[in-house]
Amino acid sequence: MSTTAYDNDNIFAKILRGELPSHKLYEDDETFAFMDIMPRGDGHFLVIPKKPSRNILDVAPDSLAAVMRTVQKLGRAAKEAFDADGLTVQQFNEAAGGQVVFHLHVHVIPRFEGIALRPHTGEMADQSVLAQQAEKIRAAL
Amino acid sequence: MSTTAYDNDNIFAKILRGELPSHKLYEDDETFAFMDIMPRGDGHFLVIPKKPSRNILDVAPDSLAAVMRTVQKLGRAAKEAFDADGLTVQQFNEAAGGQVVFHLHVHVIPRFEGIALRPHTGEMADQSVLAQQAEKIRAAL
Repeated sequence: MSTTAYDNDNIFAKILRGELPSHKLYEDDETFAFMDIMPRGDGHFLVIPKKPSRNILDVAPDSLAAVMRTVQKLGRAAKEAFDADGLTVQQFNEAAGGQVVFHLHVHVIPRFEGIALRPHTGEMADQSVLAQQAEKIRAAL
Repeated sequence: MSTTAYDNDNIFAKILRGELPSHKLYEDDETFAFMDIMPRGDGHFLVIPKKPSRNILDVAPDSLAAVMRTVQKLGRAAKEAFDADGLTVQQFNEAAGGQVVFHLHVHVIPRFEGIALRPHTGEMADQSVLAQQAEKIRAAL
């Protein structure tokens, strides 16, 4: 199986090092969660491992398990915070699989009856809206 | 948080009990993997926990971790088997989140440069094609 090397300068590595800002939701020894700045729905957030890994093809199983514990914990909180009807979880691997940033991340998107996911526009959300949504999720933890 | 009870008569529970057939890829103490019969791409398969759980909202963290270990193991095998360029992983929770069968399952779809996911048509794939694809993935394990 061919894999490509991990790039220490990807934007999530920079967020983990505090070199770029994020709307942080949660952090533990192994994982970090923050708002997606191009959300496909209200409350869309990301969970990443702290250990460098490109995607599911190279991640250590323990690190992946920790990520999924945080996905579950934060997913429950976000569902409650937004009074959502469901959650969509997505995880993309390599460009052909939909991956844009090459540090493993899991998308968690609160979902509502009759409301489709917004398309990827490449447009950033309003930072004050993201900050408010992050506060709602943190309050439900 | 409100959750709905687990229904023992969902079709994945029936597959686990051997009451319905499946193109099985892999099985261990905690997980079971088989081909999706309405694939959104060649080699599309599902991983489920053996323990009853409706979705990510109620699954035991250990059971979820086991599912993701199998997702990784089989994902690597499927990428190799189909010489795929990437993998898309999806997991839907409650109807609003895209869930149709209410036993936790993770979709794993091999992806190829320039080839979009097929839409959900509700049409079943040819069983002999699924059987051949399952054999290819098992051979790469």
